[in-house]
Amino acid sequence: MTQPAGIRPYNFSAGPAAMPEAVLQRAAADMLDWNGSGMGVMEMSHRGKEFGAIATQAEADLRHLLAVPANFHILFMQGGGLAENAIVPMNLSRGAVADFVVSGSWSAKSQKEALRYCDARVIASNAADHFTRLPDAAGWKLSADAAYVHICSNETIHGLEYHTLPDLAALGSKAPLVIDFSSHVASRSVDWQRVGLAFGGAQKNLGPAGLTIVIVRDDLLGHALEICPSAFNYKTVADNQSMFNTPPTWGIYVAGLTFQWLRQQREGDLTGVAAMEHRNIAKADFLYGYIDASDFYENRISTECRSRMNVPFFLKDESRNDAFLAGARAAGLLQLKGHKSVGGMRASIYNAMPMAGVQALVSYMREFEKSHA
Amino acid sequence: MTQPAGIRPYNFSAGPAAMPEAVLQRAAADMLDWNGSGMGVMEMSHRGKEFGAIATQAEADLRHLLAVPANFHILFMQGGGLAENAIVPMNLSRGAVADFVVSGSWSAKSQKEALRYCDARVIASNAADHFTRLPDAAGWKLSADAAYVHICSNETIHGLEYHTLPDLAALGSKAPLVIDFSSHVASRSVDWQRVGLAFGGAQKNLGPAGLTIVIVRDDLLGHALEICPSAFNYKTVADNQSMFNTPPTWGIYVAGLTFQWLRQQREGDLTGVAAMEHRNIAKADFLYGYIDASDFYENRISTECRSRMNVPFFLKDESRNDAFLAGARAAGLLQLKGHKSVGGMRASIYNAMPMAGVQALVSYMREFEKSHA
Repeated sequence: MTQPAGIRPYNFSAGPAAMPEAVLQRAAADMLDWNGSGMGVMEMSHRGKEFGAIATQAEADLRHLLAVPANFHILFMQGGGLAENAIVPMNLSRGAVADFVVSGSWSAKSQKEALRYCDARVIASNAADHFTRLPDAAGWKLSADAAYVHICSNETIHGLEYHTLPDLAALGSKAPLVIDFSSHVASRSVDWQRVGLAFGGAQKNLGPAGLTIVIVRDDLLGHALEICPSAFNYKTVADNQSMFNTPPTWGIYVAGLTFQWLRQQREGDLTGVAAMEHRNIAKADFLYGYIDASDFYENRISTECRSRMNVPFFLKDESRNDAFLAGARAAGLLQLKGHKSVGGMRASIYNAMPMAGVQALVSYMREFEKSHA
Repeated sequence: MTQPAGIRPYNFSAGPAAMPEAVLQRAAADMLDWNGSGMGVMEMSHRGKEFGAIATQAEADLRHLLAVPANFHILFMQGGGLAENAIVPMNLSRGAVADFVVSGSWSAKSQKEALRYCDARVIASNAADHFTRLPDAAGWKLSADAAYVHICSNETIHGLEYHTLPDLAALGSKAPLVIDFSSHVASRSVDWQRVGLAFGGAQKNLGPAGLTIVIVRDDLLGHALEICPSAFNYKTVADNQSMFNTPPTWGIYVAGLTFQWLRQQREGDLTGVAAMEHRNIAKADFLYGYIDASDFYENRISTECRSRMNVPFFLKDESRNDAFLAGARAAGLLQLKGHKSVGGMRASIYNAMPMAGVQALVSYMREFEKSHA
């Protein structure tokens, strides 16, 4: 490693992903005894007062960070985004019509899985453009009778992000919008006026794999199909404060530490998610700016919908991919290989990635370009 | 706390439950950097070589510990036992008949949930006996056409355990036996000749909540209902080595540490699960022996089916319950309150509870009896 002593490598994994060191240190320190309770968090009954305090605080902190309105429930669940691809239509579709905008791998998977439960329609897709831009909302063929409209608001694999959520009401639809925000949750604010349900796996921006966050408007509860497992019925989960079944207690605890860390972040007058968004814009601008100015690397996504979190890029001469990755690893820059379905490289620069990590990546890219151009 | 300095309180939680200190210490030590990788385990891509090594080792260790035959798959899933109550019938019932033996809260819940997917029949129940004994297998009304027969092999809440698994073939049934072994997995050996599928949440004997272990015979894969979510289709999970969706990586890692700890346990010539079983018998005998000899406490479960893991007991004068619990807590004996549906006390004495903890409990019970009799 060429990094200064005491600094960990920078980890660009798309998820599970790098976490704030302060969170990891706290979790390690509490391992055998949380807050003088004589128990580690993994050893606590989920129904005891100690874990109850942890879960209540985590929910309150997330509600504050994301400015979640009072008429939305925050649910801590299991199964990740892929399970939600089934759980959402089991809860919301009523076996009728649901609309899907296909903008990359994740939304495509969501639509395919929903076909088990409802008439899941693709109302727009840019597959023909190889998912290099988002389908223009003006062209979406919204169904008159859709139970909901699904988008993936950040496509982790292809590297596209909605920088403005669609206003379905303005487009003439009364359907609630469902967003899969797995890979950019808490990296930016959410316009809840436009959202009925948001779901995300925790393992990008919030905590460990195995915890799923669902934030759902209260009028959408209570319509689950009879075949929906009780443990995945949003109303059952909400009525039991996410403790109908034993919740992923460690995941909730670590996500809670991350929420506390997020609340402590400052950028000038900005705090919390607003501070993170400011940083994330700066990080993304710096990396895309370097790539665009280079003749050696390229990013193929339309500038207006590039993800701030997941930056796929290619060496124009792909025969150098292996050398690039080996050099990056030696320089303490980990997990930069692109997803197998896209190829090339991908730098995931979530909340826990500091600007210094992006600067280290660009420095390495510049050196590699210089020595291989 | 009246314990010697440096000794943690003894934690009798029914789950999530006490874990071996060596496991917790290892997990804390690895938190920021696993094995020189520069990443903590929570930060690793599940598809990278580092986590691949962890998962492969965990599966191999569990297979060794439980002597799982080669024609059974070991799956690492999410959702816990309550989710499996739906996932099992979605995968195995084919929408037809499934038989359930109701021996306590957990098997009762399993049967009720299965009704969503199949003709789930109660073929035996001892509800009339208030679940103080197991229904005699000779009296089970096995269906000729059952897709499977479900039992809960250890009832965590009521404190009953099957000390011999039923031999369905000898009872004239060709159906595979499904066992919910959540609360005694790895506390004793399993007779796989009599089992088609075993499932269990990890949070009693194996690791943190949020990880579910499913061990399934290969001929039972591939029969899922169309409405089974892909993430919970056993064949899909098996075909993808438990990585169809992002698995609960931390849970697998901590369970893997527990498996290694189990493999290191020794009692004379016995190792691993056999050594644990030896210890668990001694612990249970000591505690039940004291209770039975006392006029102050009682356990109401028939001796032949008492659980070695979960020991519910009552003070004959229940007006002293609060004083008992407060004194226990002061003596460093935690989470002894019984489940609300049963009342009284419950001591869960899983693998991680040493004999010294059971001795400390009995000493306290004796002192309490002496000062309150």
